[in-house]
Amino acid sequence: MGSWWGSFFSPANTYRRRLRRYGYILSSYLKGNENVDVVLQMEAETKSLQSLGEVEKMIGYNFKNRSLLNEAFTHPSYRKTCVSYERLEYIGDSVLNLLIAKEQFSKYPNLPPGLLTPLRAANVDTEKLARVAIQHNFHRYIRLGTPVLKKQIEAFISAVPKHPLHSHGLINAPKVLADVVESTVGAVFVDSNYSIDTTWEVASFLMEPIITPEMLEKNPVKKLFEICQKYKLKVRLVDQWSQEGTYKVFVDNQLRGKGMCREKKEIALNRAANDAYKEVFRRISVQNLNQGC
Amino acid sequence: MGSWWGSFFSPANTYRRRLRRYGYILSSYLKGNENVDVVLQMEAETKSLQSLGEVEKMIGYNFKNRSLLNEAFTHPSYRKTCVSYERLEYIGDSVLNLLIAKEQFSKYPNLPPGLLTPLRAANVDTEKLARVAIQHNFHRYIRLGTPVLKKQIEAFISAVPKHPLHSHGLINAPKVLADVVESTVGAVFVDSNYSIDTTWEVASFLMEPIITPEMLEKNPVKKLFEICQKYKLKVRLVDQWSQEGTYKVFVDNQLRGKGMCREKKEIALNRAANDAYKEVFRRISVQNLNQGC
Repeated sequence: MGSWWGSFFSPANTYRRRLRRYGYILSSYLKGNENVDVVLQMEAETKSLQSLGEVEKMIGYNFKNRSLLNEAFTHPSYRKTCVSYERLEYIGDSVLNLLIAKEQFSKYPNLPPGLLTPLRAANVDTEKLARVAIQHNFHRYIRLGTPVLKKQIEAFISAVPKHPLHSHGLINAPKVLADVVESTVGAVFVDSNYSIDTTWEVASFLMEPIITPEMLEKNPVKKLFEICQKYKLKVRLVDQWSQEGTYKVFVDNQLRGKGMCREKKEIALNRAANDAYKEVFRRISVQNLNQGC
Repeated sequence: MGSWWGSFFSPANTYRRRLRRYGYILSSYLKGNENVDVVLQMEAETKSLQSLGEVEKMIGYNFKNRSLLNEAFTHPSYRKTCVSYERLEYIGDSVLNLLIAKEQFSKYPNLPPGLLTPLRAANVDTEKLARVAIQHNFHRYIRLGTPVLKKQIEAFISAVPKHPLHSHGLINAPKVLADVVESTVGAVFVDSNYSIDTTWEVASFLMEPIITPEMLEKNPVKKLFEICQKYKLKVRLVDQWSQEGTYKVFVDNQLRGKGMCREKKEIALNRAANDAYKEVFRRISVQNLNQGC
């Protein structure tokens, strides 16, 4: 697995390779070889090119200019001499937005305009794109300068199976994963001479399953407020995020939900709302059964 | 001027035309003609088609399917039987975002990613697009169900010459004007079988002058905070918008700016910040002159 990610997981091999590499660098240095940086760069490029071939197979597109793909997988924390994915992510975000909008516009000619926007958002939000990244093993090829995001990515990978399609804000999706999907789409767009047809061929394959109006779910906070409004229940959200990373939900002054996420406040709130929604729904169902409804 | 807008401004002609039309409708009714609605509809369509020919000349594009252009100029407040511009605005917004992003991406290969986003935003924000609309006389052809927006549009037209390129949030740009530019671009995109090249030909002509990095100005609030941070001055914003539609700015506890806008809070704030910025700048310049700097 000649990948960047792979090297995180094979410490013994990495250590041996590093020893050889540092031995070579040291001897070059002692011999007065000033081109060590260039040698290192070339070595990295060769390794990178092998990985890029694997990425090309995965996405089903061969680049005319492979440096674009290299750029698409380079996080800003990676070496300062390398161009990062930020510019490609910028153009990729725009092209992906258009491609999804175009697809939905022609596929659902009778869908009210008010539903088109949340439908597109669900298909291009950070969680959906982060799912696309791990589904196609993009995370194994990202060139990171720091392993700090590794744990976040691992936690995300473990959390995904609990929510097969989308968690609607209940899990923490690392932005870097979504960024790399956008930058890859951006790289294809630029490499294909700005062809939206070619880019859609790649993107539509990557994005499967594309969320349809039937699959669209509401955000937990919205769901909670809707059910409480329907049954005339009073909701109170208690923000304790800065102290303990939690949110609490009281319904008619009774604690009905609690959510925690130290990384993101919004996720703590969504988890609390989801917890409370399930509890309110359960209580209403029991009540209806007892009343013989 | 067989336009929708024109009818607002020629009350005498409109009145005569309406009399004739209502006379015809009345006689049709008395004769038991049940197709009055259909006749009215046809009359409106003929009038509409004449106007659309003028719009096509203005934008330099002839539609294969003219009903798309009709849709692009139909506000949701217009007759319920007509399809409004909302769906075309949705697709137009996406395609315009991509076209500007693509243009900037290729035109400024060395522009840092952090500058690309505000540059695109300045080119596709409500004010910029509303300017495009009045520059090309789009406002004369919008099919509105209510004349309530007329005054807003007139006020905008009067305010524009004071800020030749962009006011950066100092004037109230009616959203309907920006919407119609987006829906027109969307209509061209759909009519041209989703060709971004054809759409760019139309959009790049409409959008002139496209804002470049050199033309990019900061928002007045940002400018005020930057100058005050530089000279170690303490800024305090006082929100009196809900009571009197104003914002006040105190710098080192002295009132230095005031801004008013009853329609939009953000504009009141921007005006107050702009007022304060000019005053702070003037005082610092005088101070520097006195100190012989």
